[in-house]
Amino acid sequence: MNIEQSKETSKIEDVVIIGSGPAAHTAAIYAGRAALTPLMFEGLFASGVAAGGQLTTTTEIENFPGFLDISVPELMTKMRDQAAHWGTKIFTETVDSIDVSQSPFTVVSDSQTVKTKTIIIATGATAQRLGLPGEETYWQKGISACAVCDGALPIFRNKPMVVIGGGDTAAEEATFLTKFASTVHLLVRRGEMRASKAMQQRVFDNKKIKIHWNTEATEAVGEKLLTGVSVINSKTKETQTITASGLFYAIGHTPNTTFLDNQLELDSTGYIITKNGTPETSIPGVFACGDVQDKVYRQAITAAGSGCQAALLAERFIG
Amino acid sequence: MNIEQSKETSKIEDVVIIGSGPAAHTAAIYAGRAALTPLMFEGLFASGVAAGGQLTTTTEIENFPGFLDISVPELMTKMRDQAAHWGTKIFTETVDSIDVSQSPFTVVSDSQTVKTKTIIIATGATAQRLGLPGEETYWQKGISACAVCDGALPIFRNKPMVVIGGGDTAAEEATFLTKFASTVHLLVRRGEMRASKAMQQRVFDNKKIKIHWNTEATEAVGEKLLTGVSVINSKTKETQTITASGLFYAIGHTPNTTFLDNQLELDSTGYIITKNGTPETSIPGVFACGDVQDKVYRQAITAAGSGCQAALLAERFIG
Repeated sequence: MNIEQSKETSKIEDVVIIGSGPAAHTAAIYAGRAALTPLMFEGLFASGVAAGGQLTTTTEIENFPGFLDISVPELMTKMRDQAAHWGTKIFTETVDSIDVSQSPFTVVSDSQTVKTKTIIIATGATAQRLGLPGEETYWQKGISACAVCDGALPIFRNKPMVVIGGGDTAAEEATFLTKFASTVHLLVRRGEMRASKAMQQRVFDNKKIKIHWNTEATEAVGEKLLTGVSVINSKTKETQTITASGLFYAIGHTPNTTFLDNQLELDSTGYIITKNGTPETSIPGVFACGDVQDKVYRQAITAAGSGCQAALLAERFIG
Repeated sequence: MNIEQSKETSKIEDVVIIGSGPAAHTAAIYAGRAALTPLMFEGLFASGVAAGGQLTTTTEIENFPGFLDISVPELMTKMRDQAAHWGTKIFTETVDSIDVSQSPFTVVSDSQTVKTKTIIIATGATAQRLGLPGEETYWQKGISACAVCDGALPIFRNKPMVVIGGGDTAAEEATFLTKFASTVHLLVRRGEMRASKAMQQRVFDNKKIKIHWNTEATEAVGEKLLTGVSVINSKTKETQTITASGLFYAIGHTPNTTFLDNQLELDSTGYIITKNGTPETSIPGVFACGDVQDKVYRQAITAAGSGCQAALLAERFIG
């Protein structure tokens, strides 16, 4: 280690925030106002997502309280500016690894190694996609990965929609979308659903939902907006194009936790396990907020709320 | 019961929201976008607080993500408009009682009785005040009940401040304020603190905190802004005026839950008990969000996050 490096690592930060979405920025605003001068690693297209987080895969947001309708880049710029205003030092670098085996903790990015008393992890989760032909073209022009966020949009009102998936989320989203859709076509890859019996029954009982068993999507088709989804029955090899204004992916999310190298307790699907709805992880001084620890709500406002909690707990932890 | 009344009660609502702060309005926005046409009872100066909730006892807010600095009336008007935009029917009436002993539940206000499948309680908590001479005059001109909210304001920077209280909150707030204050005078009514030993030790170890035992405030004094706090030592009867730019009350909050008549599980201080950080109460279909169930964070953004959760759970409960 040369002298410059050893100097660099001799400073111990109060808090390092990893992430760039509503959870990360809210944590930064609160940590900053508590005079902790937080460092934030917002990532450089980390996990394939732009700074601003998972929210940036949509264009408008109508359900963040205080904003009747705002573009996502505008909302995220406001939050980022607010974090910076309160003294957050933002690095557009992706964190490669952390070491929480001893205190102070270590955070390593491409260009630097930082020692810190606390870490707030807000790296989010990425909705899985199928990579269908037409998917990029019609993303947010009919295709979405969040029924709660986008189901109420006028383009879907009384129109047929397609949901892909066989788990609880797919069952929930299909049921939810029947409030808006004329018909919901549920594409299930196998001859049965993985969803709980209760959720399945809810789907079976809903006359607006038509289940397509053993069916996979092959293409998203449309003009300016999505108009339909081409599918194939994997048993009969029959193909058809289902007319639809909406296509909702409910095939799961991938929490962005591989860089943790299993140093924190994760559940079987890779989400960080937190304690009783607080942002506390299995390591005291390391907090997790937003979608990286939430597979139930996944909303910008719930992420922001948990970011505030993480910052207040970090402040108390430092004392 | 006359015919008109019986007609009125034959309709069963999906969700009734009780409250008017960030939790209530976020719940309304989400319930509205899920096509539940929520009813909201925002109260008529309920628990002595204007519609908008506890937040209305302050004037500006700097830590709600997305707003660098906004007046509270403006923020709450935006949220209320957004709730109304998504179909919320708002009544400026206080709820007198609810009956959750059978489903559908009943909500009774001054002028109406409503049947509903779910209830979201977001009635908040009210910070206790002392009713000192000068308190009204200097409220938000130096006097506050939230160190996390207001401690970072420029008027307090490097100035002496006074904190009143002897519990954990007082210890936490006094410690927190030393980041900004030149000195923090902690007024403790008795000869000892109620705070936990660990929190007390933190206070004793902090050289910026001066504890005044057996001391009570008698008056808030000032000019345009607060300049000091007059106190009396209850043992020696000595009086003095402590120079201070800030006076923070940390003498507790009263959750607004008396109208529940103990039909939900409450803790020993009257807060609604929720399950593992979710808004679920002891009665399925009744949800609680915001400060009425939170004595740890008490922030507008955490309240809003829990309001969203309550609405999503109510939506799933109805199915």
